[in-house]
Amino acid sequence: MAQKPSIPKGTRDFGPLEMAKRNYIFDTIRSVYSLYGFRPIETPAMENLSTLMGKYGEEGDKLLYRILNSGEFRQGTSVDDFQNKSAAALAAAFCEKGLRYDLTVPFARFVVQHRDELQLPFKRYQIQPVWRADRPQKGRYREFYQCDADIVGSDSLLNETELMMIVDEVFARLGIRVCIKINNRKILTGIAEVIGAPEKIVEITVAIDKMDKIGLDKVNDELRQNGLGEEAINALQPVIALQGTNKEKLATMRQVLAASEVGLKGCDEVEQVLNALEETDLRNVIELDLTLARGLNYYTGCIFEVKALDAQMGSITGGGRYDNLTGIFGMPGLSGVGISFGADRIYDVLEQLNLYPEAAQSGARLMFCNFGTKEAQCCLRYARAARAAGIATEVYPDSVKMKKQMTFANAHRIPFVALVGENEMAEGRLTLKNMATGEQQLLTIDEAIAIINEA
Amino acid sequence: MAQKPSIPKGTRDFGPLEMAKRNYIFDTIRSVYSLYGFRPIETPAMENLSTLMGKYGEEGDKLLYRILNSGEFRQGTSVDDFQNKSAAALAAAFCEKGLRYDLTVPFARFVVQHRDELQLPFKRYQIQPVWRADRPQKGRYREFYQCDADIVGSDSLLNETELMMIVDEVFARLGIRVCIKINNRKILTGIAEVIGAPEKIVEITVAIDKMDKIGLDKVNDELRQNGLGEEAINALQPVIALQGTNKEKLATMRQVLAASEVGLKGCDEVEQVLNALEETDLRNVIELDLTLARGLNYYTGCIFEVKALDAQMGSITGGGRYDNLTGIFGMPGLSGVGISFGADRIYDVLEQLNLYPEAAQSGARLMFCNFGTKEAQCCLRYARAARAAGIATEVYPDSVKMKKQMTFANAHRIPFVALVGENEMAEGRLTLKNMATGEQQLLTIDEAIAIINEA
Repeated sequence: MAQKPSIPKGTRDFGPLEMAKRNYIFDTIRSVYSLYGFRPIETPAMENLSTLMGKYGEEGDKLLYRILNSGEFRQGTSVDDFQNKSAAALAAAFCEKGLRYDLTVPFARFVVQHRDELQLPFKRYQIQPVWRADRPQKGRYREFYQCDADIVGSDSLLNETELMMIVDEVFARLGIRVCIKINNRKILTGIAEVIGAPEKIVEITVAIDKMDKIGLDKVNDELRQNGLGEEAINALQPVIALQGTNKEKLATMRQVLAASEVGLKGCDEVEQVLNALEETDLRNVIELDLTLARGLNYYTGCIFEVKALDAQMGSITGGGRYDNLTGIFGMPGLSGVGISFGADRIYDVLEQLNLYPEAAQSGARLMFCNFGTKEAQCCLRYARAARAAGIATEVYPDSVKMKKQMTFANAHRIPFVALVGENEMAEGRLTLKNMATGEQQLLTIDEAIAIINEA
Repeated sequence: MAQKPSIPKGTRDFGPLEMAKRNYIFDTIRSVYSLYGFRPIETPAMENLSTLMGKYGEEGDKLLYRILNSGEFRQGTSVDDFQNKSAAALAAAFCEKGLRYDLTVPFARFVVQHRDELQLPFKRYQIQPVWRADRPQKGRYREFYQCDADIVGSDSLLNETELMMIVDEVFARLGIRVCIKINNRKILTGIAEVIGAPEKIVEITVAIDKMDKIGLDKVNDELRQNGLGEEAINALQPVIALQGTNKEKLATMRQVLAASEVGLKGCDEVEQVLNALEETDLRNVIELDLTLARGLNYYTGCIFEVKALDAQMGSITGGGRYDNLTGIFGMPGLSGVGISFGADRIYDVLEQLNLYPEAAQSGARLMFCNFGTKEAQCCLRYARAARAAGIATEVYPDSVKMKKQMTFANAHRIPFVALVGENEMAEGRLTLKNMATGEQQLLTIDEAIAIINEA
């Protein structure tokens, strides 16, 4: 036989068992989003490169998948261009379209493009794959799903509050205990101001973000490398090392940030969200964490991240407030806030903790064995009745050896098998076998349906 | 404001209302597939071009979207290549991957690649988008969903029978009256044999396939152009003009094909499927139609197509038996049969006939108006209770003018609005407004939940 065909590195096939588990996650997230009044949208896999370029930083531009123009794509490109232009410039000449890199930029594009049809505030969710030409590695793929919810057109902190309730509800339903971390970009801006290095805000947040991964010393080294003076670094230490309850932390920060208007505003925002959440009986802990910075520079207010308590795994959900995302498409002044569930990591956590419900793993609940054309004809009628009663049912298509058919039923974890031979046909009945107990009963199809539906 | 951003020609955004309708279609198809024991798989959007090329004919190769290799894609291409190679050859040098063109070839690739893990017969369904660099026109898009179900590893005609039952069930659930057309490639092969032009089978089927669109005269012209003699064309006339019940048609065809073993085999196959279906109470008509040929040359046995009776629209579902699809990936001898629902056309038919249920069009069922921070806090608690009772609920995030909030509720067709002002808060109650009747009632949250759940 020829060499097996394969799929591109970093992409995946999902078989029935993986699909059942993935759908369990997507359905849970989708249900909760709907319950909170978010409504679904979908955008095309391909966007114009003019929409995508420059939105994810220089590194991001390199990770975009470009689609070669159809037909004579060389048109307008000279030999000189071919020899001397950079790969990026040549790609720009050959390609007009690229694959979606995330769901946030297409959403911003969607809002601006359809602004005349939309009623603000607009609450949408979107569950679709994205593509990145990243180096594949464990847990990092070139095609993966994002599960985003965003509200645009409302400044209210009620949105942040409800997003935290959604996070809490999703993980409660999935049975994953989590810690929800919250911070606010304005607090980080305030810190930069207070230590006298406002222009270093990006470097400071990026460095602080690595606290968990590389520890205090290396964070300090990185700050130094980024040109922060010892005085500033010293001033940062109490902030990085902050301890206590959320209220205690906020009180300390209000002192540290006394001279920074924006910093105090950040404290107010976090406090309002935390206060509102106090009365909503969250089942998970929410914690103010000043080392939480998140890489994306478009965040301007509250930011959040979620970590699983019982599994070693990076952030499994994140998000935040961005005040000017649609500005890049010529529609300034529209504030938004959103979250994104990391389905692949959640999948791995559920797998590690063995938290998938049995129901998320099964296909048909009844299979008819096939003893020949005449018997199969009778099975078709019975199967029709079982399906009408909502029971997922298969008729084994070929009248092969019984053992082969039973092996199939076992491999598919089908809990009931029905046998219809000559005797059963003559009596207008079937033999129902419970595959778990091995018990067999001679029944009418209606009796069998009742038993399966009660099981 | 800058120019509005846009999306690539032939692609579409789907807003919440379109999504609700599309999901209604996908969910219906998915439910029926599951009920028949089909299990979902997903394959990557990107496949290796070696998997896709040469599978869809020359025309198909041109319609593949190619992904530019990342980084220095020029590597290995000389200036001479750039100047003198064809666009296709140069594209082959610059691109290793392409976007999925249909779901059938990726499925065949999946089966061969995972053959050691699969239990045959393998029944899978797959609902994913595909991409074609086709000229966009009304009803034809460059990105669209296919909804396929296939069984591989079983020759049994029971599979064809069950697929027809699935078609019948899906359209019954959607409320679309259809005619299911069935034919068999072996019958067509037999006809070609009998008229003495076996090598013209492709041209004959392609021409006959156009009967509905261009009429008898032009079909005959096309046959002539393809080199068929007048004798052969004359011999074809009774076949093209065949009338009567399925049984009558089959009887006539058995006479016409008396000298063709393969032709008679085709008649047997169709007859078996039709007989088996007789006892299953189909709600739609199934009709043997010899002009049905379907363009795809990989079909080898039964072929089917579905037309809506009450709307002007091409085929809305199609499929057939193919005996050697996995052979192209080095795994010969595996027979398969499948169907594909055309979601976009079904969408248009439902739209034309106004068949969408009300439930497929609504978002939240309850909205809390926002009168300020303190009141909103109370609303959050009430909303939590309503959501726990399964009611999709929004809290309007900003305390803006009442009129604006009501306009929002109306635009989103939210059937109930709750008002919680100072009085309601003091009494531990809310005012529930039924948006259809205008009726207002002062209620506890539990009473309100009961009313909404009964509505």
